[in-house]
This record gives sequence, C-alpha cells and structure tokens, in this order.
Amino acid sequence: MDDLLYWIGLAAVAVNALTGVLDAGRKRMDLVGVVMVGMATALGGGTVRDILLQRPVFWLSDQSYLLAALLTTVLIFFAVRNLKLPPRLFLIPDAVGLALFTIVGTRIALDWHAPWLAASLLGMITGVVGGVLRDVLCNEVPLIFVRGELYASAAWVGALALIGLQALNVSPVAATWAGMALVLAIRLAAMAYKITLPTYSARE
Amino acid sequence: MDDLLYWIGLAAVAVNALTGVLDAGRKRMDLVGVVMVGMATALGGGTVRDILLQRPVFWLSDQSYLLAALLTTVLIFFAVRNLKLPPRLFLIPDAVGLALFTIVGTRIALDWHAPWLAASLLGMITGVVGGVLRDVLCNEVPLIFVRGELYASAAWVGALALIGLQALNVSPVAATWAGMALVLAIRLAAMAYKITLPTYSARE
Amino acid sequence: MDDLLYWIGLAAVAVNALTGVLDAGRKRMDLVGVVMVGMATALGGGTVRDILLQRPVFWLSDQSYLLAALLTTVLIFFAVRNLKLPPRLFLIPDAVGLALFTIVGTRIALDWHAPWLAASLLGMITGVVGGVLRDVLCNEVPLIFVRGELYASAAWVGALALIGLQALNVSPVAATWAGMALVLAIRLAAMAYKITLPTYSARE
Repeated sequence: MDDLLYWIGLAAVAVNALTGVLDAGRKRMDLVGVVMVGMATALGGGTVRDILLQRPVFWLSDQSYLLAALLTTVLIFFAVRNLKLPPRLFLIPDAVGLALFTIVGTRIALDWHAPWLAASLLGMITGVVGGVLRDVLCNEVPLIFVRGELYASAAWVGALALIGLQALNVSPVAATWAGMALVLAIRLAAMAYKITLPTYSARE
Repeated sequence: MDDLLYWIGLAAVAVNALTGVLDAGRKRMDLVGVVMVGMATALGGGTVRDILLQRPVFWLSDQSYLLAALLTTVLIFFAVRNLKLPPRLFLIPDAVGLALFTIVGTRIALDWHAPWLAASLLGMITGVVGGVLRDVLCNEVPLIFVRGELYASAAWVGALALIGLQALNVSPVAATWAGMALVLAIRLAAMAYKITLPTYSARE
Repeated sequence: MDDLLYWIGLAAVAVNALTGVLDAGRKRMDLVGVVMVGMATALGGGTVRDILLQRPVFWLSDQSYLLAALLTTVLIFFAVRNLKLPPRLFLIPDAVGLALFTIVGTRIALDWHAPWLAASLLGMITGVVGGVLRDVLCNEVPLIFVRGELYASAAWVGALALIGLQALNVSPVAATWAGMALVLAIRLAAMAYKITLPTYSARE
C-alpha cells in the first residue's frame, strides 16, 4: 500500500504542477515564472502543512517530489507549443490528487499529535493550498474561494470522516481508504450533478 | 488577569474573523472562501509570529481559537442575509483586539528571547498581519499600507513602550497594561482627530 | 572574507529595501506601507529560506539586518521628496546583491544538509523571493515571472555551479567566489546583450 501511495503521490504532484503551468501560461509568464508557479502549486500545500506542524519539509527529506515537479513543469512548458491539452482531461487525476493529498496530510497531522479539528484543517490545507498559492502568484482571487464548487469542502469532509472512523476504532488502513473514497466520491458527484455551495449575500 | 486576557483574546479573534468575512463578501466568495479568508484574518498574525519564532503554532496547542474563528465565520456568513451590520460598530472592538494581539505578541516574543527591535516588530506582526493576509487573498493592496491611518504604527509604538518600560524596571504587569492602553489611545485619538501618516511622494 | 561578505550583505539588504520602497511608492502607499514592503523585500528571501530549513531566522539572531532595512526604507521615504533617484543607478548593486544572497543562501542550505537540488533552489529562493513578496504585497504579478530576464535563472545556475565545483573537490572558498562571479557575469551579460528567456506560448 505504501508503494502505491508513493506513486500516486508523485503523479498528483505532476498533475498539480500542470494546473500551475496552464494558469501561469494565461499570464504570459516566462520559463522561470512557469516553473516557479508550477512548483509552488505542486508542493505548496504540503510545505505549508509541514511548516505549521514544525516537521521537516517533505521535499527536503526526499528530493523525488522536487524532481517530479520540476520535470513536469519544464516538459509541459515546451509540450504545449506543439500539443493541445484539453483542461477537462485533468479533472479526474486532479480529484484523485486532492483525495490523496488531503488524506495523507491528515494522517501526517495526526501522527504529529495535532488535535482533531486542527488535523482535519491541515489535511484540507495539504490538498488545496497549492492552488491558492498559484492564484495569488498569478494575481487572481483564489478560484476555490469563488467558484462555489465542492472542492475544499469535499476535502474537509473526507478528512473529518477519516478522523471520525479512527475514533470509532476502525483500523487506520480502512479509515484511510474510506476517507480517500469519500473525497473522490463527493468531488465527482459535485461535478456530475453540479452541486454548489451557497455564496455570500448580504441584506442591503 | 490571565483569564480576562484569554476571553478578550477569543473576542478579538472573532472580531478579526468578522472583518475577513465582510471583505470576502465584497468579492462574492462562496462559503469556503468566506470561512478560509475569515480564519486567515483571525489567526494569520499569531501564526506568522509563531513560525518566525519557531514556537508551536498557538491554534495547534489550543483548539479554542480555531473553534472561535470557525464558528464566527459560519455564523456571520448566514447572519448577514438577514441582518445589516454597520461596519462602524466594529471599530472599537477592532482597536481593542489590535491592542491585545500586539501586546500579547510582544510578550511572547520577549519570552522567546527575541531581541528588542525584533520583538516589537513581532508584536506588530501579531496585530496586523491577519488583515494583510486577508487583503492579499482578496487580491487587493493591503489596506493598512495605503490608508494613512495610525494602525500598524499605533501597534508598534505600544510594543516599543512595553519594552522600554520593562527596561526601566517597571513590573511586567504594569508595562503590559500601559502598552495596551497606549495602542488603544493612539488608535482612538487618530480616529477621533483624523491624524494621518505621511504618504509617499517623489520629486518628478 | 567573512567581514567583506557581512558588509556586502548589509549593502544588499539596503539595495533590496530600496526597490521595495520605489515599488510601494508607485502604489501611493503611506509610511507604514513603504516600510513594511521595503522590509519584506529586503528580508523576505532569507526568511523563507530559514523557515524552510527550520533554522533560526537570521534577523532574529542578528538585528543589524533589521536595522539596515528599517533605516534604509525610512531614509529613502523622506529622501525621494527632494532627490530624484534614477532606477538605472541600482542595477549593478542589485546584481551584486543577487549574487551574494544566492550564494550565501546556497552555502547555508548545504551546511544544514539540504540535498543538492533543494540546496540550489533554496539559494535561488534567498536571492529572489524578497522581490516576489514585494510584488504580491503591491498586488502585481511578480516581475521576475514575466519579464523574460535572466534573473532567477542566473541565480540558479550560479548555485548549481557552486555545488558542482564542491562535488569536484574544489575548495569551498574558491567555489563560493566562482559561484558569485558566475551569477554576476550572467546577469550583467544578459543586461548588456538583452538575452531573454522563452515565454509561454500554447498551440491554439
């Protein structure tokens, strides 16, 4: 199982890097901008989690994540000149990556003795903060704050489910898979049935 | 005194969360955006202070701040549909919160052996960085950088006063109250008499 | 050599602070905004490096950097009212500062046992993240992401050269000077001959 998670993790880093590259491209960035936005998108969530937990930053312990993000961004930067990549192609890998990042982040926070509510938020942060950083660096309001999509909320519910199941003495392995499946199921259902969040509206 | 500070602290977190919600609302954010901007506003200053000091992040040690910020943002998100909240209502609690955050932040920095100038800046950071984060996430130039108001400067003077008084052998308790009173007094006087800071102007 | 590096370091902090002040000025910021943007520009790169390495933040150990940044920003804030500063004047000191920050940052990362690729990126981060922070706080897309200039890339090549030379058993002192000279040479050559990076372009 650890091996499988490791490879899905690297793939999720690559998919995240890709969304960073496409967004940086819309701003007509140069190679450095594209690579730095791509890497911030791919590695930002886990980095913020590790800094908040005061635990060694994951890409300083294992450079393979750094290499995966760097190679992906450079490859895509040159590939998009000759290939057309339809963004819809990446919706499913992105949802898998969100589920994985969130649940792995929650597990790490629990292992470092974060209390339950903080651990669930650190899991969500692992899943979504890369995209927030990407949008801030591209000088845009973060997409996940305005679109009304079930994205960060799907991540949070899955993280809470994992923590709840473990509190009910479900085995960690089973709770991990259940949490990931839940994030993925909510995300896919929200896309299929266009379920949205309420938006801010004030009395005038 | 510690009990009183604790409750004022929770109230200040709630007021800060509120300014985040109102700002996020102007950008028509969804529930997730409002909650995340609200929480970043409420907890951001203390979080940056703790990361810079490499001390355990305060909301990971005590979840009550996290709960106060979360409940406030969700409550206000739904309350503003039915209630009209005049922003002027919050100027006084916001000034109290600024005074409290700044002085508590300065004390913590001194306890962690930060040198005096760094400690005064860490106090100011505790007081104002939440609002800076809020404005960055809402894709705006930080308000406290452009308005010319005595806000961060009031915080900084109070922090320096606390440090100066302790250097003169005033008791920590007395210096704490004096620092807080000074931040509050400068802030309220600046609002009442419209005292402003000089603005950048270059020779053409 | 250490003494020389120390003084060049303080000068580089001052030059960085200056670019922050000029940028904040374009946004008509007040004294607090100018000082905070100036200090974030001057100290941001090294601060992010230290937080990622979980090593004590450099301006908490030695306040002279803090003082240099603070005095420079306040002085320039008032000086620009009476003096006209042509931005071209600072291109050379800025290139020297980039070379110094990058190579010192890389050395520190190696001393803290960061693996080679991570160390080279931490060196680049030390050199360029202050400017990125400045642009984010001024609500602009980071200049070094869009201009196509050899800036971050010059820093990265110099950091890699330092690491490569040490792997080939060149003495640390010689490798340090060679790395710095390389960053400076690439940067000056790029300015003189207008060498630029490829920019993102997608197939339509």
